[in-house]
Amino acid sequence: MAIIKASIPKGTRDFGPVEMIRRNHIYDTIKSVFKKFGYQEIQTPTMENLDTLTGKYSDEGDKLIFKILNSVDYLNQNVIDMVHSFKNKYGDDYKVGKFRDDGTEKRAIIDNTLEPPTPESLKKNKEYLDEFRRIQNKCASEICSKALRYDLTVPFARYVVMHQNEIAFPFKRFQIQPVWRAERPQKGRYREFYQCDADVVGSNSLLNEAEFICIYDEALSKLGLTDFTIKINNRKILTGIAELIGKPSQIVDLTVAIDKLDKIGLEGVEKELLSKGFTADDLHTLKPVILLAGSNEEKLAQLDTILKTSENGLKGIAEIREVFDYLASFKLNKAKIELDLTLARGLNYYTGCIFEVKTNEVAMGSIGGGGRYDDLTGMFGLQNLTGAGISFGADRIYDVLEELKLFPNTTQESTKVLICVFGKEEEKYALPILASLRAQNIHAELYPFGTKIKKQMQYANDKNIPYVIVIGGDEMQSGKLTFKNMQSGTQESLSIAEIISQLNLSQKK
Amino acid sequence: MAIIKASIPKGTRDFGPVEMIRRNHIYDTIKSVFKKFGYQEIQTPTMENLDTLTGKYSDEGDKLIFKILNSVDYLNQNVIDMVHSFKNKYGDDYKVGKFRDDGTEKRAIIDNTLEPPTPESLKKNKEYLDEFRRIQNKCASEICSKALRYDLTVPFARYVVMHQNEIAFPFKRFQIQPVWRAERPQKGRYREFYQCDADVVGSNSLLNEAEFICIYDEALSKLGLTDFTIKINNRKILTGIAELIGKPSQIVDLTVAIDKLDKIGLEGVEKELLSKGFTADDLHTLKPVILLAGSNEEKLAQLDTILKTSENGLKGIAEIREVFDYLASFKLNKAKIELDLTLARGLNYYTGCIFEVKTNEVAMGSIGGGGRYDDLTGMFGLQNLTGAGISFGADRIYDVLEELKLFPNTTQESTKVLICVFGKEEEKYALPILASLRAQNIHAELYPFGTKIKKQMQYANDKNIPYVIVIGGDEMQSGKLTFKNMQSGTQESLSIAEIISQLNLSQKK
Repeated sequence: MAIIKASIPKGTRDFGPVEMIRRNHIYDTIKSVFKKFGYQEIQTPTMENLDTLTGKYSDEGDKLIFKILNSVDYLNQNVIDMVHSFKNKYGDDYKVGKFRDDGTEKRAIIDNTLEPPTPESLKKNKEYLDEFRRIQNKCASEICSKALRYDLTVPFARYVVMHQNEIAFPFKRFQIQPVWRAERPQKGRYREFYQCDADVVGSNSLLNEAEFICIYDEALSKLGLTDFTIKINNRKILTGIAELIGKPSQIVDLTVAIDKLDKIGLEGVEKELLSKGFTADDLHTLKPVILLAGSNEEKLAQLDTILKTSENGLKGIAEIREVFDYLASFKLNKAKIELDLTLARGLNYYTGCIFEVKTNEVAMGSIGGGGRYDDLTGMFGLQNLTGAGISFGADRIYDVLEELKLFPNTTQESTKVLICVFGKEEEKYALPILASLRAQNIHAELYPFGTKIKKQMQYANDKNIPYVIVIGGDEMQSGKLTFKNMQSGTQESLSIAEIISQLNLSQKK
Repeated sequence: MAIIKASIPKGTRDFGPVEMIRRNHIYDTIKSVFKKFGYQEIQTPTMENLDTLTGKYSDEGDKLIFKILNSVDYLNQNVIDMVHSFKNKYGDDYKVGKFRDDGTEKRAIIDNTLEPPTPESLKKNKEYLDEFRRIQNKCASEICSKALRYDLTVPFARYVVMHQNEIAFPFKRFQIQPVWRAERPQKGRYREFYQCDADVVGSNSLLNEAEFICIYDEALSKLGLTDFTIKINNRKILTGIAELIGKPSQIVDLTVAIDKLDKIGLEGVEKELLSKGFTADDLHTLKPVILLAGSNEEKLAQLDTILKTSENGLKGIAEIREVFDYLASFKLNKAKIELDLTLARGLNYYTGCIFEVKTNEVAMGSIGGGGRYDDLTGMFGLQNLTGAGISFGADRIYDVLEELKLFPNTTQESTKVLICVFGKEEEKYALPILASLRAQNIHAELYPFGTKIKKQMQYANDKNIPYVIVIGGDEMQSGKLTFKNMQSGTQESLSIAEIISQLNLSQKK
């Protein structure tokens, strides 16, 4: 067998023991809150049929889907014929070079016959490349019929439609699984990463939206965050603003510009809006929107006036008010709630409330987001099923907890005590002790005899094991074992019963 | 957007809420035991580099690896040239048909020119097909450089080599993740399934083997199994037997035949052995092996005599004895231990003890297995690292628990109480009640107002929610809420404090 250098695909990660404990801490905390609010876990397959996924994430997204080669027909007659006639058409004069990860050419097509390039040869080059792209895509769809999950939303929609007769609606599900995207890897962006979603479908009550805010609040507070903001907006308010000035398609330009008010001031915002094609009249109408400030209630009161002619806008205001009314009955922990008109994530997707969560303790993008959508399952033929959902950005939350040193001590999870022995006889003596520790549910290990005690101690240190029992001839004779606290360095001579009671005490801490 | 029929790839599964609770119950139980014995969790990426995986699972296994299409260069100049010259060579006279899932042809190659087939055309057919296969495989390796994890063992070996400088040896790791194999799906065999492995590398102590037996015993007993057998054998004993008769390559034939003693008797076994090329002399020598019976100690005593001339055999016996010696210090729960010379799983892989676990309560293949191997990481250039490992067959264990009705009541995990309200006002009244239930860590839901109580009750039933609180005008006036036990059907009028104390009581049960 040839020796292969050990490596992993770029953009993917191994998670070692400490990372796993920390990641599980995040997932377990979020899960416990999801469950408390009645959300149930499901899992869907890693592979979905390719046609389940394509066309759902825009052309850009489609390119980032990892496709799986068919296990048998991965070179069929169609591909052979297609490639053959392509090559016949262009002959040996044209070849394609390597592509970069993002699909752009690393080097241009090599046209062997012509040098330097003429306008005509460049045109032919482009024609060749376009045709190459076309058959490349066609070829991919001939030889791949499955792909890796790209998000949890489309598989959830597919799940709801397939299982609609078994499901009790409103269906509240959560799902924590990895997804894959063929993006160019960079710091904080991976090709395999976990999503952590909760959605409810089949209920239009705004209680759901209010409860999502409670879920964010409780989960993030439990994780130790003390200063974070849940921003809320409503698509209908944005629609109302667009109606004010008759420019519905430019709502994103508008929100992006407003968002810069703090940085570039009113003048800057107005300048940017003019450059995007808004008129002086528009600016006049928009000025109260741009300058909207104050408490959430003050903002809503101003919007009442600003949007008084827009049915959609007023509906959006009423929805936000209703969510706030629900929240008044629930006591939030640490979350601040902020109405933010610049929030416009996934604008084409969301139809009602929109959420985004930001920590104020660390410079970091959003650590969560979501909203209401009206037609999740239409793409699979089940119409008019309204839903709302949120997502936790688990990888970013990991980085935040790490930076704020909020991860609990990992020794809770790992081995509590290591028994070190000098030799075979001591090992034999130690075995029932090991068994009695484990019978007390104490995570315990015995280092097999034959290794110097110093190295055994090193193992305890490396593995963050907080206590060590040393057994030599003296200990066997007296029945009093050497019990060492690896953090403080102190050691005592104790009976096994005393050791167990100490360990049980420290377990409860 | 075109409407797509909701479906999933064959051999894959959705897991709904009840299945997830049950699957987590199995994983959590096994994990808790792994941790108690000092094993630490790791996770590796879903995708591995293709060359990390190929050549590790025999040719048969290589064919079952799911390959991932490169995200950019999935049709390159090499493929174009290869396919083009293939087509040029055979012209339009030859085409390939569809293949079955297992790679055999559904229909033969169509040779347009010749009918009926002649010996010559058949020969040409075969030549075409062989060549097609060759370029198909070459093409796959040109357009795919990543693949889905096929098991947890090779990624673990790769992990150990990549992270050898961070690891404290002996390294005890466990890993519970899905793997993918392009096998023909059938009952109980999936293309995506979970493996559940624990391995230790860097320690040759047989304490590890003894502890694996304890882990099986504790985990399966915790899951409720009361009658299961952990079979043990040793590769060196098998080697010793082969040395007795000088037929080392036929050890599998031998063990397969011996395994049938109960069914076909001594005569039958001897007949089968003769048909496999064993001689009468061999049979004479093997007879004591075939007839080996009695307690484990009795079997070992007989083997002492039978294998007295084989150094390897005696070493194997000594290893088994040492494992039994260790076990004498540990109290097993429900497991029976049986020395079984017919156990030969993964013979080319294991070098010392071999394990297999079978339940005696349900007809089912092995629900676990493992053993010691000498050179796990050699394929990645790290030599002489000994290891041992076991695996739990989680899917089969699921089926066993289901058949024996051993799954705990799922209501422990799901919503405990549903609040049903008649209208908007009752909903408002109910919100602080909902909040106070959740503050007590009681999983609680409020069914949004606007739906008939009967339908709300149906939701509680469908979701297996054990308690319901009904709030109407009377309840609001008296402060005594209707509290219904959905299983018994009884209902009482109770204050919220009384309800909470009842629910807390039932939670502790």
